[in-house]
Amino acid sequence: MKCKRCGGKAEVKLRQHNSAFCRACFVYFFQRQVQRAVEHEHMFTTEEEVLVAVSGGKDSLALWDALIALGYRTAGVHLALGIGAYSRTSTEKTEAFARSRDLRLITVHLDDEGVAIPTIAAFTRRPACAACGTSKRHHFDRIAFEHGFAVLATGHNLDDEAARLLGNVLRWQVAHLAKQHPVLASTHERFARKVKPLFRISEYETAVYAFFRRIDYIVDECPNSAGASQLIYKDVLNRLEAAMPGTKLSFVQEFLRSGQPAFAGETNRAPQSCERCGMPAFGAVCSYCSLVREVETKQARRMAARPASASS
Amino acid sequence: MKCKRCGGKAEVKLRQHNSAFCRACFVYFFQRQVQRAVEHEHMFTTEEEVLVAVSGGKDSLALWDALIALGYRTAGVHLALGIGAYSRTSTEKTEAFARSRDLRLITVHLDDEGVAIPTIAAFTRRPACAACGTSKRHHFDRIAFEHGFAVLATGHNLDDEAARLLGNVLRWQVAHLAKQHPVLASTHERFARKVKPLFRISEYETAVYAFFRRIDYIVDECPNSAGASQLIYKDVLNRLEAAMPGTKLSFVQEFLRSGQPAFAGETNRAPQSCERCGMPAFGAVCSYCSLVREVETKQARRMAARPASASS
Repeated sequence: MKCKRCGGKAEVKLRQHNSAFCRACFVYFFQRQVQRAVEHEHMFTTEEEVLVAVSGGKDSLALWDALIALGYRTAGVHLALGIGAYSRTSTEKTEAFARSRDLRLITVHLDDEGVAIPTIAAFTRRPACAACGTSKRHHFDRIAFEHGFAVLATGHNLDDEAARLLGNVLRWQVAHLAKQHPVLASTHERFARKVKPLFRISEYETAVYAFFRRIDYIVDECPNSAGASQLIYKDVLNRLEAAMPGTKLSFVQEFLRSGQPAFAGETNRAPQSCERCGMPAFGAVCSYCSLVREVETKQARRMAARPASASS
Repeated sequence: MKCKRCGGKAEVKLRQHNSAFCRACFVYFFQRQVQRAVEHEHMFTTEEEVLVAVSGGKDSLALWDALIALGYRTAGVHLALGIGAYSRTSTEKTEAFARSRDLRLITVHLDDEGVAIPTIAAFTRRPACAACGTSKRHHFDRIAFEHGFAVLATGHNLDDEAARLLGNVLRWQVAHLAKQHPVLASTHERFARKVKPLFRISEYETAVYAFFRRIDYIVDECPNSAGASQLIYKDVLNRLEAAMPGTKLSFVQEFLRSGQPAFAGETNRAPQSCERCGMPAFGAVCSYCSLVREVETKQARRMAARPASASS
């Protein structure tokens, strides 16, 4: 098997692109794919400083690595979620990556500056993944606003986007379909533009890139994700991909080209400002503050119900 | 486990409906589901005579059985496709069913009145399933027109509809999405209204119904269907259904309710008449005649190329 670009010995085969590459050419190919996505989708310019959401996993670190290699101006933001050893390792890997390359990283410890995910899970009946998503959106937007970033880049890859699209399609959530896009424009002064430069790059490709670039990332999946519907969607998409290579890419690409225009009439209301924190909200209070308020109320109730002897 | 309707001992459990039924109540439930689909979707009335496309498989025979039990006026049409033992058994089962209930059945032998599927497969490069679909559509419409039926009912079940929808969605074939519906109105004098009364009933339910009603059907799948993408789609939908019961039903129902209206702007041109056979066509010649013409041309060429000694 020969490298499509230089004719040398190929080390990675990409069935959906009907291509094979050697190590150096794959790294070039990957970075070019990132650059093309950024440019073609008008995600950001070389002048803008981009806040990169980094979890410590392969996708977000591969994204950060590629953006730096491509000469974009970046800073990282990492949320230490408080999910035991998993979160500790995530934070260590992220901080080590930033330190080794002398990159600016803003780390938010939810234990101190918010509510750790296990506390939310213990005090509310919301699924941990939903609560975690709400927390992440809030803190990413808050940090972007406080530090003056207009754009937040996340490491969502093709597999993530295809799984999300499948979930939206299986339930025909037309409002979600109307706004599933690699670029989400800002609709509020505290809502950063969200961009996904890896949206056409598969999970397999980011793993290969991280390996070739010797990026040390956390391999474990979040312990809360077991049984999550996203994983089921990814599993069936992998089966389809195996039987019909290119399925994921054409599913997402054709959606953006042919499918989504049909949903353009769906209106997604612009947010107002949360009366508690000032961040974007679709009611008087944003979903993050309503989550925190629920935790606070229940924590207070439990404290009040505790017998006097136990609190001594 | 108790029957939801009569409280007796249940024999079948339907997870997607969160119900269980005894034998008699399941048969009642199944027939009521068929009746509801026919009435709610305005498929046909009790006055109209319905042509039922019967293959000899469980779905089409269960449909015919239920329509008769519900008092609808029906006749059957069966295509003997010429696919060896599979087709012979299909025809035998269909004819035995009609004979035992004294039903009117029109059987078309493609060997005599058209081109058998293996001949098409041998002389063209089209996939057998595509050629078979083209043949079926042509002959069903032809028989309906020649015998004066305005409506043709097929046994497509929920699994078929969900698989077809998934295929259309994975490639975002918006023109197909615009017209995937349990009722397809007539757009040409020789294009019968097509209806699918089983579109909300799962393959499992039709199998149980056929078993309870002692319907003797052909169990084998068509030998040409191995590896067909429909089967792959059905497989992944079964995985989703197992993890999230009700997925198939809500996928199809929500599509019709929320998804499809978005594609209403997609125009599907009305057909003209085929200059060769007079049936609906989207060019000068209909897709069936163009298929037959291709077979005839290639057959003639092969005959001409044959050495004189071989033809003696």
